[in-house]
Amino acid sequence: MKHRFPSITLGLPEWMDDSVPHGGVTLTSADARMEFVIMLSKRNVEEGTGGPFGAAIFERDSGRLIAPGVNRVVPASCSVAHAEMMAIMVAQQVLGVFDLGGEGLPACELVTTTEPCAMCLGAIPWSGVRRLVCGARKEDAEAHGFDEGDRVVRWVDALAGRGIDVIQDVRREEAAEVLRQYNAMGGLMYNGRLGDG
Amino acid sequence: MKHRFPSITLGLPEWMDDSVPHGGVTLTSADARMEFVIMLSKRNVEEGTGGPFGAAIFERDSGRLIAPGVNRVVPASCSVAHAEMMAIMVAQQVLGVFDLGGEGLPACELVTTTEPCAMCLGAIPWSGVRRLVCGARKEDAEAHGFDEGDRVVRWVDALAGRGIDVIQDVRREEAAEVLRQYNAMGGLMYNGRLGDG
Repeated sequence: MKHRFPSITLGLPEWMDDSVPHGGVTLTSADARMEFVIMLSKRNVEEGTGGPFGAAIFERDSGRLIAPGVNRVVPASCSVAHAEMMAIMVAQQVLGVFDLGGEGLPACELVTTTEPCAMCLGAIPWSGVRRLVCGARKEDAEAHGFDEGDRVVRWVDALAGRGIDVIQDVRREEAAEVLRQYNAMGGLMYNGRLGDG
Repeated sequence: MKHRFPSITLGLPEWMDDSVPHGGVTLTSADARMEFVIMLSKRNVEEGTGGPFGAAIFERDSGRLIAPGVNRVVPASCSVAHAEMMAIMVAQQVLGVFDLGGEGLPACELVTTTEPCAMCLGAIPWSGVRRLVCGARKEDAEAHGFDEGDRVVRWVDALAGRGIDVIQDVRREEAAEVLRQYNAMGGLMYNGRLGDG
């Protein structure tokens, strides 16, 4: 039976399979994990498969990759499909859980090339991750034309109060450079409402 | 070829088709639109298809329903699948756009049985809607065991500053009653991390 309202299907780009070695990825330092997601953000722009943002869910302690994510807003016709949201949703599908912090699971962390916008920040406590690792800052995103939305000012403290540690400025300049290049080449600024009124 | 990482598929419950009359729904008042989404929130609990929250995207001026939404967190294994996010994502699929406020589209509004949590609030500016209509307040959600996350205190002003009007307290008591009943019957509280540590 055809349903009146469509399902939503969100997938990672075709090239993701050959960006992740067979046998998986294990990266033990925050620096190496950030290098990996910056590579994803660059490739997403080069391949024309979305905006200049990459993210991933790793097991915090072992460094095993659970799920990568890249921005898919324009190709998926979905304003929710930020890199962090994709990584969270794919990781939850991989593990078959709505809570990455549930009983019996290894602690998970979210690594993202740019500090999360208001939506992604709000999604983090519900996802179950225990640590957030960020590259570029909000100021970098804004300097290159992106809108991070209305976040609580003391968001690092707010996450800490929920048992979620935050590490900032990992490979910050390199992460910000991807944003600068996207802006300089005239990449579509898809945040917010484009119509008048 | 089987991809290494799964796609995410999010769908509305089977019963949604018979909750929406053939030929569609047009509701001209905020009150009638809220009555409709409260009905969805109740049915979602009765049918065991998710949490006690309903939402929908309407054309603001004509009142034509574009897409309904209900909470699907537990059945979809997806912490992102709040009612508002489902309605936004389904509406964007229906119209084939990532921006419901794009050129040539009628102004859209989001109607939700409970004020949006921090994630859904952050998603609203990116969705392209021009008005938000709310039933129960944050205080009602929290009184019945739900966590709304860390929102900016002056969130109504912040949305207004982005050209998004907010209407609050539409059928507030009736919307809150669904939350109370869900809590009283021992419904799973799925917000946040359930594991230790």
